[in-house]
Amino acid sequence: MRNLDGDLRKYSLLTAICIALLMIICAETAAQPAGLMPLPHQMAWNSERHRLDNRFAISITGAPDTRLYAEASRFLQRLAERTGIFFKTWNVTAADRPKSPRLYIQADQQGKVQHGMDESYTLEIKSQDVHLRAASDIGAIRGLETLLQLLASDASGYYLRGCRIADSPRFPWRGLLIAQPYHFMPMDVLKRTLDAMALVKMNVLHFYISDDQGYTIESKAYPRLHQLAAGGPYLTQEQVRELVSYAAQRGIRVVPEIDLPGHCTAILTAYPHLASVKRDYVLQDHWGVFDPTMDPTREEVYQFLDTLLTEVASLFPDEYFHIGGDENTGRDWKRNDSIQRFMQAYGLRSTVALQNHFNRRVQAMLATSGKKTIGWDEVLMQEIDDSTAKARFEAGDFTALVLTDVPKDMVIQSWRGMEALLSSAKNGYRSILSKGYYIDLMQSTAYHYLNDPIPFRNNVIIPDSEANFNRFESEILRKVKAGEKLLGPAEETLILGGEATMWTEHVTPETFDARVWPRTAAIAERLWSPAEVRDVADMYRRLDLLSIQLEAVGSTHLKNAGMMLRRLSGTSNIGSLQELVGYLEPLKGYRRNAADNFTKYAPYTQLVDVAVADPGTLRNFNAQLDSLLAAPTPARKAAMRSTLQRWQILGTDVTRMAASNPSLTTAQGHASALSSLASFLLTHTGWMDPGKRLSLPEQTAFQKLLQEAERPKGYCTLGVAESLSRHLPAGHR
Amino acid sequence: MRNLDGDLRKYSLLTAICIALLMIICAETAAQPAGLMPLPHQMAWNSERHRLDNRFAISITGAPDTRLYAEASRFLQRLAERTGIFFKTWNVTAADRPKSPRLYIQADQQGKVQHGMDESYTLEIKSQDVHLRAASDIGAIRGLETLLQLLASDASGYYLRGCRIADSPRFPWRGLLIAQPYHFMPMDVLKRTLDAMALVKMNVLHFYISDDQGYTIESKAYPRLHQLAAGGPYLTQEQVRELVSYAAQRGIRVVPEIDLPGHCTAILTAYPHLASVKRDYVLQDHWGVFDPTMDPTREEVYQFLDTLLTEVASLFPDEYFHIGGDENTGRDWKRNDSIQRFMQAYGLRSTVALQNHFNRRVQAMLATSGKKTIGWDEVLMQEIDDSTAKARFEAGDFTALVLTDVPKDMVIQSWRGMEALLSSAKNGYRSILSKGYYIDLMQSTAYHYLNDPIPFRNNVIIPDSEANFNRFESEILRKVKAGEKLLGPAEETLILGGEATMWTEHVTPETFDARVWPRTAAIAERLWSPAEVRDVADMYRRLDLLSIQLEAVGSTHLKNAGMMLRRLSGTSNIGSLQELVGYLEPLKGYRRNAADNFTKYAPYTQLVDVAVADPGTLRNFNAQLDSLLAAPTPARKAAMRSTLQRWQILGTDVTRMAASNPSLTTAQGHASALSSLASFLLTHTGWMDPGKRLSLPEQTAFQKLLQEAERPKGYCTLGVAESLSRHLPAGHR
Repeated sequence: MRNLDGDLRKYSLLTAICIALLMIICAETAAQPAGLMPLPHQMAWNSERHRLDNRFAISITGAPDTRLYAEASRFLQRLAERTGIFFKTWNVTAADRPKSPRLYIQADQQGKVQHGMDESYTLEIKSQDVHLRAASDIGAIRGLETLLQLLASDASGYYLRGCRIADSPRFPWRGLLIAQPYHFMPMDVLKRTLDAMALVKMNVLHFYISDDQGYTIESKAYPRLHQLAAGGPYLTQEQVRELVSYAAQRGIRVVPEIDLPGHCTAILTAYPHLASVKRDYVLQDHWGVFDPTMDPTREEVYQFLDTLLTEVASLFPDEYFHIGGDENTGRDWKRNDSIQRFMQAYGLRSTVALQNHFNRRVQAMLATSGKKTIGWDEVLMQEIDDSTAKARFEAGDFTALVLTDVPKDMVIQSWRGMEALLSSAKNGYRSILSKGYYIDLMQSTAYHYLNDPIPFRNNVIIPDSEANFNRFESEILRKVKAGEKLLGPAEETLILGGEATMWTEHVTPETFDARVWPRTAAIAERLWSPAEVRDVADMYRRLDLLSIQLEAVGSTHLKNAGMMLRRLSGTSNIGSLQELVGYLEPLKGYRRNAADNFTKYAPYTQLVDVAVADPGTLRNFNAQLDSLLAAPTPARKAAMRSTLQRWQILGTDVTRMAASNPSLTTAQGHASALSSLASFLLTHTGWMDPGKRLSLPEQTAFQKLLQEAERPKGYCTLGVAESLSRHLPAGHR
Repeated sequence: MRNLDGDLRKYSLLTAICIALLMIICAETAAQPAGLMPLPHQMAWNSERHRLDNRFAISITGAPDTRLYAEASRFLQRLAERTGIFFKTWNVTAADRPKSPRLYIQADQQGKVQHGMDESYTLEIKSQDVHLRAASDIGAIRGLETLLQLLASDASGYYLRGCRIADSPRFPWRGLLIAQPYHFMPMDVLKRTLDAMALVKMNVLHFYISDDQGYTIESKAYPRLHQLAAGGPYLTQEQVRELVSYAAQRGIRVVPEIDLPGHCTAILTAYPHLASVKRDYVLQDHWGVFDPTMDPTREEVYQFLDTLLTEVASLFPDEYFHIGGDENTGRDWKRNDSIQRFMQAYGLRSTVALQNHFNRRVQAMLATSGKKTIGWDEVLMQEIDDSTAKARFEAGDFTALVLTDVPKDMVIQSWRGMEALLSSAKNGYRSILSKGYYIDLMQSTAYHYLNDPIPFRNNVIIPDSEANFNRFESEILRKVKAGEKLLGPAEETLILGGEATMWTEHVTPETFDARVWPRTAAIAERLWSPAEVRDVADMYRRLDLLSIQLEAVGSTHLKNAGMMLRRLSGTSNIGSLQELVGYLEPLKGYRRNAADNFTKYAPYTQLVDVAVADPGTLRNFNAQLDSLLAAPTPARKAAMRSTLQRWQILGTDVTRMAASNPSLTTAQGHASALSSLASFLLTHTGWMDPGKRLSLPEQTAFQKLLQEAERPKGYCTLGVAESLSRHLPAGHR
């Protein structure tokens, strides 16, 4: 309800009575349009259809930033791409005013692309015309995305479906982190990601620049950074400016991160004199947590950082600057006597306290450049092994684990658990949630979707396995389940939003899009739409349609699968492989990181790199299994038999293909397992009938097949094993 | 045979006897490896297999340019992408020398990326090791591409197939023209095109910068060019340098073209005082030939060009510079009295003569920048309406149509016909063939493949329809058929090679790759491989495999079809649409240009934009029809019935999809026509048997169905109509 009242008063268009009559909370609306995501704050359909033809033209009034003209022209281009209509006017400019516009855009003032920007808009589609009204061009740009999602067609042609929408975001911070040092994403990947983010109304690109594996932008102040420590390609300063300007054009901020004082091997490779320990620094090409750390006790380190951060800050106009602060092992500090003496002299009893000292200096430095500092939750939280504090925390004292002296305008990005999120709010810090939005960990869209930055308010819990919860989380879960409200309204406003994080250890420019989309769209909806919007089935329905729209703005998440399978198999006949991949999921969590000798050069071109988290084929199979076991009609039985017969064919096909192709060994293993399951389930069809039972030897045989199917091969698992285990009544096994 | 002898003497590895025993002209070798293209000058298989494992490492000796180290590292990366092998060493550097290399590269000297560069190499693959030897790093880079194409696999793993190759290009100039002003191709498209060109050993990017629709690179000398007349995005000078350097890294030259004095609306929009006629100049967004022309009689025009061309020349280090010269209507010159007086004063009797005057001034200007000038064939040829000259030309006097005073070091790019190619050689001019390589005109790969820059030598004729030949061409054809050799050996060496031309009127970054690849690979083979390599069936077999390799270096020519069909249909279930597109071809020639109101903003997202010239499905159907009619076995009849039944299903599917989707009307029309043909052919199966006949009414009905199938819809035609008309014995119709 945030901006709605203000908007309505401002435009004096809707009376309170109209609202009551017309507006229906979107979660209650049965018929949602095709791919609308995120769902608007409030919307109501009318029965009108705004028909499109080549005379469709746009009028812009008010005092918007010029970016709106470019975005309106781009809107026309995208509308033409989808409809094939040859519009008579293509360029929307301040100078040319169409005589009979169909779409009226009113944007009162120039939007500033900064935290807290006004993104609200209202939209009214009638058969005669369309009205989009916003306080600023940024709200209008958000509204244009909604409008494109309302495109529909029937036998008579294309139209925009009649409705009234009043929309504004639930959270002001809706971000995506892209880590450049592991696998560098070139400009074209970054730009198409920004286009896709804009499509789902995200507004922050968290641009992670520096880590042990590389420092990935040009530095004129310290050129050895990009010359010796980029670890591959880097963005020139001109490209950085182009990126920031491209993002601003879409109403997206770019927040840079230079990870300090750990995750610093790249900087220390270029400038080893800043290190805590003297050694030969070389760039990491493996993944993990490493010891190299800046020395926080020497003034020359702060002089270096002052110059460097001032330079980086000047490239990124955003008011916020991220200094990292995560995963400092502290080991190099313990190895250095001089640092130990410093800690004693200043009464710093732990490396965490020393890091806090460092953070405060860097924060003060950035403040002189007019920047607000963000850090990962380590910058706020004490070490978890302080048992007294831990006990107090468990007892509900959220201040217990918090460091003293952390400046109040430091923003906390919570990634490890819920402690930091709660503690920061309880202690008056603003925070951003990333825990539960780690899209690199291959979890399901539903998992991310139901993960709410304010879970306690709506009693929506993080649907991770409770078994994996730590004690804090279990305690919180207990309270939430008991209906306890942990934060007050003022504390809730300190939670700015969230960020999906794409750590790119196992991701290349080729696979990046399919690792980000469409799952991140569900996170975008979580952060934009009202908390009550949480119908998982409807989310998936809309996501499948949105996926095609994401593709239309350049995302390769659908089309690269075919390319990769053709390369893997050396043939164009990839139908069976593609079908098989639909049943596979990459290992969740960090299980791939722990395995094998992966580096930034390793090939990420194998079956696991084609497989996606939460594939549609698997979802469809699970639904088919659900409905069959719920009511085993003859038609459903026949459909299941037909699915299982397909599995047998996949087994044969893929085995044949793999005979002379070593890259398909993994695929062959999965296809065989699938085929064996199918053969068993087709022979012993009794499992489809609730009344019948498998004999004990049959149960044993089936268990063995399931185990083989569940066994990871090539870092993938066959998702059907889990659902078959779960769904088949115990008596059958 | 060009460089072979030299190479062999140089490396003293093969004796003449070995050659005689081992080397077989590749055209005679039955078993070609998968996707080898272009075929090498000489090659012979041995029975060895060089097995690949993670210890595969590369040693580089000699004195190559550093680009070879980067290319060798890239080779390893591509090898890993295809095989999934985690090599122990990834970076090939001058400093790190592997202890037990498997691939030995010897490159004697630094290659210079310029006309005439030495691209020869020899390659020897044995089970123990692989030897690649070249005079320069550029030859070695060509050899690395060949080596990647020799990758094969069996049940034991991946290997490089044993062979001996001695390779060098037939022509030194093997180019691709990309026109930027119609649809601007951004850096990522240009870079992936260069990667694909390198894969098939092309060595010239002809970069067409300026036309009536835009001037597409930054000019610091005349900033109004990019500020007011880019007509959309443009490349900055930094990007141009990046492009040139990226190309040089692959051993590819970049030759710029500023089209003068016609095709000049963009320049005149920015600087109207240079025009022949005073009027309000605005950028064209339509396609065609327009009147705006520079005034060749005023000194300030030459001063402008001197500054501009010097600036452009400095961005492109290549020795050659293209000044266009095509399609000057001359109308604006006739409209200007002052220009008319100038022509009288200097005795210039036609606008062609005036343009020659202009060309010579520009050529002299470029010569002072150390550049050699290239022009389209208009710069050499007189107007065709000089009937005396024409008669003399027809009688075999190839000097008759040539302008006097054209400087001898002007290179002629022949695009309109064979006259210029023959005339330039007969008159001592060097030339490049583009006639017959216009890949924007949607002709078949076979057509381009058999089009030889020296057709008369091998009695290979341009396989265009003879009916379309002009009188010169008919005369030449007559002579060639009579076995006459039109050029002497010295004259033949004046033909430098050829260029495929991608004029982008109807091509966007989305469709560019599928309009260029894989067809251009066949042109690359024509220009690299011996003239005797011209087995069309084998070319197609290799092309289908090469297509996957092109995709692996980034070309979107296969994968974008799915994306476009999903956008068009709004669904992921595009199987039937994709199958239908396999039977469709875009209209050939300029028939689309002539139609409708196409501009640079029009949507190029429709069925015709997904359809490709010469699709594999159609080729397969034609082969199926051939073999059935040649010998109608029961198996072949059954297979044909099955194909026809698929057509019926396509008809039903696509009709259903089109019911509420106006973008699929065209698809529905084609699917219906296909389905009707199928129904007829399945009802009257007698046509499959040579002995039987259709009744007269049946023949009439079938003719009507064929006519409907042949009728273009949405700028596409159903290719099967042509083959069915051609293949069905007359008696059946």
